[in-house]
Amino acid sequence: MSGADSRIPADREHPFDVAIALKPGDTGDGGYTGQTHPAYANMVGPYGGITAATLLEAVQRHPERLGVPVSLTVNYAGPVAEGEFGITARPSRTNRSTQHWWLELTQDGRVVTTATAVYAARRDTWADTETAMPEVAAPDTAPVTPMPDHVQWAKNYEMRFLDGAVPALEGAPESPDSTTTLWVRDAPDRPLDFPALASMCDVFYPRVFLRRGQAAPAGTVSLTIYFHADDDALAAQGTSPVLARARSNRFGRGYFDQSACLWGTDGELLATTHQLVYFKG
Amino acid sequence: MSGADSRIPADREHPFDVAIALKPGDTGDGGYTGQTHPAYANMVGPYGGITAATLLEAVQRHPERLGVPVSLTVNYAGPVAEGEFGITARPSRTNRSTQHWWLELTQDGRVVTTATAVYAARRDTWADTETAMPEVAAPDTAPVTPMPDHVQWAKNYEMRFLDGAVPALEGAPESPDSTTTLWVRDAPDRPLDFPALASMCDVFYPRVFLRRGQAAPAGTVSLTIYFHADDDALAAQGTSPVLARARSNRFGRGYFDQSACLWGTDGELLATTHQLVYFKG
Repeated sequence: MSGADSRIPADREHPFDVAIALKPGDTGDGGYTGQTHPAYANMVGPYGGITAATLLEAVQRHPERLGVPVSLTVNYAGPVAEGEFGITARPSRTNRSTQHWWLELTQDGRVVTTATAVYAARRDTWADTETAMPEVAAPDTAPVTPMPDHVQWAKNYEMRFLDGAVPALEGAPESPDSTTTLWVRDAPDRPLDFPALASMCDVFYPRVFLRRGQAAPAGTVSLTIYFHADDDALAAQGTSPVLARARSNRFGRGYFDQSACLWGTDGELLATTHQLVYFKG
Repeated sequence: MSGADSRIPADREHPFDVAIALKPGDTGDGGYTGQTHPAYANMVGPYGGITAATLLEAVQRHPERLGVPVSLTVNYAGPVAEGEFGITARPSRTNRSTQHWWLELTQDGRVVTTATAVYAARRDTWADTETAMPEVAAPDTAPVTPMPDHVQWAKNYEMRFLDGAVPALEGAPESPDSTTTLWVRDAPDRPLDFPALASMCDVFYPRVFLRRGQAAPAGTVSLTIYFHADDDALAAQGTSPVLARARSNRFGRGYFDQSACLWGTDGELLATTHQLVYFKG
């Protein structure tokens, strides 16, 4: 896909494609090996979005895969160490129009991440978007506002925060509202596909930072994505910015939840996503 | 727990406890057998909530279980047939303060339902509920409004719809809004615990019925629950009604999503829950 991107030389792969690249094992039974990519590093292990994308990629390229993803749940059981990892992807049940997947990411024989995915053959039905895209400034009128320099993975995204930007490292106030809204796209440009959309679903920094006005240890333990986009919607979106908005319902006893919507530039709801996040403080 | 319930004779078990009852296998390796209960029957197979509760029960009673559930995802891969089923519960990873579980429900050697759960040792932290309970009529001022008589499972819940009640079988109008709000509790009364709360998270009839003003084939394919309640919150709730509110963000190409909140009578947010639902029409 990088051939379509004017910002990457034709002989170079996009960093996202390098990061999610998998090598099938010799046995052909849904086993793959991959490698962490320093460009998507986070505080402890890689950015959760790239892990979600890599697990989805294992299904996308599996010879038994039918249809498109409609649901993905990723459970972050432990930190992914820098270096090689194995992924096992297994269809647990294939029906006429749906297929259920079981996924496991391991390192040194230990389970690091588990996931389940539902794929489906989509067909035309009655349709309606009840959660419309909020009225916000157009992407090109909002300044690009990078995350702090030490956040490696965020350099792969062009972020234009409209509200709820990352609090300053010192002296930021508490906030009564955990909402963040931003325009986001891959940097360099890359046409949107299912793994890229999955990765983008984890693009929000921890909501507790915003509420408390300061960073603290936090990490996603479980992430769920519902894909409303199909192949046509992704093709229509292309490399345009996605409007992403997240907020939390409840913080307490070491965990908070987060729900988010991702709309295409034209207002199409591409995905809704939810996560439960561990935090200290 | 039925001993605390004045509405069930002391020598009788609550139907919910009978429905989620599991018998450990001889091998002691996390294998259980259970039996569908006619009181929780739905159109095709049992009510999804009772399946979620039964899977959670397999972890609750597992000798290796640590802590309390914070997250549960259930994937409904195929209809559960009337009769016996097997459940395998396996800790995929145990950390210092979290434990990840992998669950599979099978019948005749075929996978019917898959699930993952995250358990945690919860500890005191900063806390805040950002999504407050809406101001609604008190439970005892709202009439009990049963579901249509053929919906067996719904007879195990006392439901008091405040808005978005089940559309009439004929001549109901379309609705521009998919929101349903109801007070709900087990009928007969039963003190709330994690399996009962999990089951209640699936208590909403399909949102597409409300939007379209008529029933049509629909079924949950994936359900996720984030448990904000801990043991103390459940004990405080007891047998009081839970306020449950659900709505959808997007319907299209055969699937819609649903997000819901469940608050205790005192306004404590007990759980947030999300699902992706297949529909025809």
